[in-house]
Amino acid sequence: MSASGEDDLIARYFRPLATDPGSLSLLDDAAILGGSADDLVVTTDAIVEGVHFLDIDPSDTVARKALRVNLSDLAAKGADPAGFLLTLALPKVDAAWLAAFAAALQQDAATYGCPLLGGDTVSSPGPKMISITAFGRVRKGAMVKRSGARAGDRVLVTGSIGDAALGLDILRRGKAATATASDKAAADFLVGRYRVPQPRSVLAAAVRDHASAAMDVSDGLAGDLAKLCAVSGKSAVIELAKVPLSEPARGVFAAGATSIEALVSGGDDYEILCTVAEAQWPAFAAAAAAQGVAVTDIGMIVAGKGPPVFRDATGAPVTLARTSYSHF
Amino acid sequence: MSASGEDDLIARYFRPLATDPGSLSLLDDAAILGGSADDLVVTTDAIVEGVHFLDIDPSDTVARKALRVNLSDLAAKGADPAGFLLTLALPKVDAAWLAAFAAALQQDAATYGCPLLGGDTVSSPGPKMISITAFGRVRKGAMVKRSGARAGDRVLVTGSIGDAALGLDILRRGKAATATASDKAAADFLVGRYRVPQPRSVLAAAVRDHASAAMDVSDGLAGDLAKLCAVSGKSAVIELAKVPLSEPARGVFAAGATSIEALVSGGDDYEILCTVAEAQWPAFAAAAAAQGVAVTDIGMIVAGKGPPVFRDATGAPVTLARTSYSHF
Repeated sequence: MSASGEDDLIARYFRPLATDPGSLSLLDDAAILGGSADDLVVTTDAIVEGVHFLDIDPSDTVARKALRVNLSDLAAKGADPAGFLLTLALPKVDAAWLAAFAAALQQDAATYGCPLLGGDTVSSPGPKMISITAFGRVRKGAMVKRSGARAGDRVLVTGSIGDAALGLDILRRGKAATATASDKAAADFLVGRYRVPQPRSVLAAAVRDHASAAMDVSDGLAGDLAKLCAVSGKSAVIELAKVPLSEPARGVFAAGATSIEALVSGGDDYEILCTVAEAQWPAFAAAAAAQGVAVTDIGMIVAGKGPPVFRDATGAPVTLARTSYSHF
Repeated sequence: MSASGEDDLIARYFRPLATDPGSLSLLDDAAILGGSADDLVVTTDAIVEGVHFLDIDPSDTVARKALRVNLSDLAAKGADPAGFLLTLALPKVDAAWLAAFAAALQQDAATYGCPLLGGDTVSSPGPKMISITAFGRVRKGAMVKRSGARAGDRVLVTGSIGDAALGLDILRRGKAATATASDKAAADFLVGRYRVPQPRSVLAAAVRDHASAAMDVSDGLAGDLAKLCAVSGKSAVIELAKVPLSEPARGVFAAGATSIEALVSGGDDYEILCTVAEAQWPAFAAAAAAQGVAVTDIGMIVAGKGPPVFRDATGAPVTLARTSYSHF
């Protein structure tokens, strides 16, 4: 876009979100994050129309998803949000789309205490793309890594798994759409889980205080756990029957319209997967309960370097044909 | 791209660039920027194929441009590079393209002391897009803003202006191509100035120590100066005859294949534009000379709120029909 067109767009839609003095009201080349003894945790995730969100998704949910997938990373690292940068690639300037996008982003920035610090707006002949870099702060050395899992740690996951994959299936008129055709509330819940992640920011402190390793589940529980295990040099044994499913997901499963394999390899959960030593588990559970976030114990970290083993209700190992969601 | 495809791509091409321990070897959800009393300066700029670079541009120059446009911002803010995040949107995985891209990026990261800290790689049906967020450090409160210009300050610009606009014109087979048809060295120089910016990182300390206001020239000298003046609440008087032109640009100008207006409103210069109090000018000039970077005094900041006034060699004001480069 033209330089003045970009300036106008920024002033109109995004300056109201730049509430932190370090943003310099988006009038400079750069933003300032003030010096601090705390470590700064930085993460960046981009979403592309037609790949990570659908062209029929409303722009307010696109905005929330773009920010929240990054807030989910910060929460899983035990970091409190400090601000974000927004890069927007747009094929054209659509005032209605932008107004709803910016309004939703402003709400989420306020809700999560994560003000807009800066960004870039570029024209692109391609699909809409939103790239966000988010900053969080933790006490020096306190960021929770993927690499700290120890044998004997419990494997915990927040919320419920597989909802977003079913929501996407509903939007694509797959089997889950048929299974929820007579239950609008269930379908709306699952679609909502796909469109608007719920970052577990309120658990950041509990993760920081109690988890030995953590990550957010974005590409499928099974594949993401495999990554955590690999970088920790450990393996895990997971009871598939313990994987937490929402009531709507149970309904779709009961109707034969999905499989446990699809649910644990589906993308876009944005829940926290973490490992917690046995001695820390009561304190972590209490902290999660105090915040009203469900946390479920799904298995245990074990010695060894193989991929995690998933067991069915009889204790027999289940071979998963795939463990992660692929965008192709 | 698939989760495992993305992991393989990161391991193969980008892990060698992640030399800072805070990158966690690109194996975690986030990177760590260690706590420090210094302020962190953050900037983000994206480039899109067909908009900010051409599909015929080699991937090594695309990589350098993507990083250097951000390094240019840091230099103009008086900040020393600390690291960067890379977000890459690609329609497909092209091994040859990626190998040359990563190798050039690795070289520049080493040259400028700016290691890769993290990023995201996404598939996109659209054009290639590279979005980089760069971090720099300055002493607390020492970032040089656009807003500090004072009446009486000299207006200075590094290097030469308008080369990149001519380089783009050559690549598009415009008048500058004809004017340089018999001078391959001149054409190569101008194309190089378009494809590979020269961030004035060696001047960061001088800017920090001596400039009252600064920014990098990316959308055209005239328009960028207007922004600096507006946010400083000042105006400026600029002598067009003093605007520094390279020998190749002078040649194109002498051939009647460009105008001073086109040169001062052309994009992609990536030079530093700054204002320096008269008393600081000798020290700034000495520091620039010590670093081997040309700095030219092109005019003066004056009281008032109007846009900068550009004067020709007779002192008469020149009206510029446009002041910035537009991507449309």
